[in-house]
Amino acid sequence: MKLRRSERLVDMTTYLMAHPSTLIPLSYFSEQYQSAKSSISEDLGIIKETLELKGKGTILTVPGAAGGVKYIPNVGVEEAAQFINELCEMMETPERLLPGGYLYMTDILGQPRLVDNVGRLIASRYRNHPIDIVMTVATKGIPIAYAVARYLNVPVVIVRRDSLVTEGSTISINYVSGSTKRIQTMVLSKRSLPKEANVLIVDDFMKAGGTVNGMVNLLEEFEAKVAGIAVLVEAEQAEERLVEDYLSLMKLSDVNVREKMIKVDKGNFFAAPSES
Amino acid sequence: MKLRRSERLVDMTTYLMAHPSTLIPLSYFSEQYQSAKSSISEDLGIIKETLELKGKGTILTVPGAAGGVKYIPNVGVEEAAQFINELCEMMETPERLLPGGYLYMTDILGQPRLVDNVGRLIASRYRNHPIDIVMTVATKGIPIAYAVARYLNVPVVIVRRDSLVTEGSTISINYVSGSTKRIQTMVLSKRSLPKEANVLIVDDFMKAGGTVNGMVNLLEEFEAKVAGIAVLVEAEQAEERLVEDYLSLMKLSDVNVREKMIKVDKGNFFAAPSES
Repeated sequence: MKLRRSERLVDMTTYLMAHPSTLIPLSYFSEQYQSAKSSISEDLGIIKETLELKGKGTILTVPGAAGGVKYIPNVGVEEAAQFINELCEMMETPERLLPGGYLYMTDILGQPRLVDNVGRLIASRYRNHPIDIVMTVATKGIPIAYAVARYLNVPVVIVRRDSLVTEGSTISINYVSGSTKRIQTMVLSKRSLPKEANVLIVDDFMKAGGTVNGMVNLLEEFEAKVAGIAVLVEAEQAEERLVEDYLSLMKLSDVNVREKMIKVDKGNFFAAPSES
Repeated sequence: MKLRRSERLVDMTTYLMAHPSTLIPLSYFSEQYQSAKSSISEDLGIIKETLELKGKGTILTVPGAAGGVKYIPNVGVEEAAQFINELCEMMETPERLLPGGYLYMTDILGQPRLVDNVGRLIASRYRNHPIDIVMTVATKGIPIAYAVARYLNVPVVIVRRDSLVTEGSTISINYVSGSTKRIQTMVLSKRSLPKEANVLIVDDFMKAGGTVNGMVNLLEEFEAKVAGIAVLVEAEQAEERLVEDYLSLMKLSDVNVREKMIKVDKGNFFAAPSES
């Protein structure tokens, strides 16, 4: 159907937002709106300019017959700082303290809007890396992994602690939990990871890094590659950490059970080398 | 900053898409763009008209001092039919067959774009119901639950099979699996569900309905209410099903292991009473 420019702008924006990091041929839009490619290009120019103005991302043009346009999401520095501050404040409420100094984070992880923003932040940092797959371990990392993967437009692979009949053949490894030093098992469906895949590992919480390190070992079994490691919260760690190169949005620097005090700072997100 | 109308339309659409089912005061936009509320209302009129034209949803205006606008997502009948057909075809590939007649669905559930669409479909059907929370059971239902909850702008609550130290106090129930007749356990953190909450139960697969029924029983323990039940796939069931009123996107009608044949039809999504 034929639309006016203002309507085209709204509809194209809606479509692009729903298909992040996806190559869309210009012909898709010109057929959709029965408009010349030159008009579509002008529209895309306006969308690109507006996204960039707010630091919300850009429209990438891929030239050639197999080309098209891609919406690449981003987060402005100011928006990112504000959001991470908001998260830190939520984390510092004393009601989160559980016996043993554990923290209740289920309410934060249960809010799709927050999880979506966390995913957008992490995805924005890896937008220029060749990521083929996002991997996490059940259960709490799953929503974050999906949010990241949606923005990067790649599949999610979920490592489990147990083997399920609906997973088909699996490969399993044993690993040592960094904090408790207990031997644990990780299982992944054999057909879920192609060889040589570039995998971004995502999790909600990292202490000594045993779980993340287990996922790294599992990737070796599959002959896949670690393209990055990103966690929502890292805990300040006295002992040596098993994982070195990672991205964190928050850092749990102190938990005082007696005084019911939790101290959460921003993670290395801003310290890590920025890209643009 | 001051924007032209075309830029405002793009930026407002971006913002609304990122905040589905969320009340946004008009003053937010007028301050953001230093524009009169009358101009903003005109812009919103164009956005509303364009969304409705494509069946992608609408903009709801809530009058009064505490009012504003809300983007209510929807899916056009044609788009819904096409998407469900696409899913059914994917489900019918013989490589999915696992020993025992189980189906490998992990690859479908691992694709954020598909999961997001499933969520949009389910959310569109419950957009006029008073849903406070989306509930699922770990693990495979989690991404679907988040997709639904993101569009409905409500939190997600995840029932587990085991108790975790980071969940705090929990309530657990035993239930009988409908297919295997085995006694199983479900656990939910005590602070995750307020009394009287209207809960939409979501899962990936339902056979006899034992798991879903378990969640219904768990809701009774919490004195919360079942506001709806939605599953991605229901299996045709010879025996009596434990759950009666539910929404399904697909129906697994036949699995023939010997001939490597899987028959998947569309579920009751279109049969169920439609709302508009």
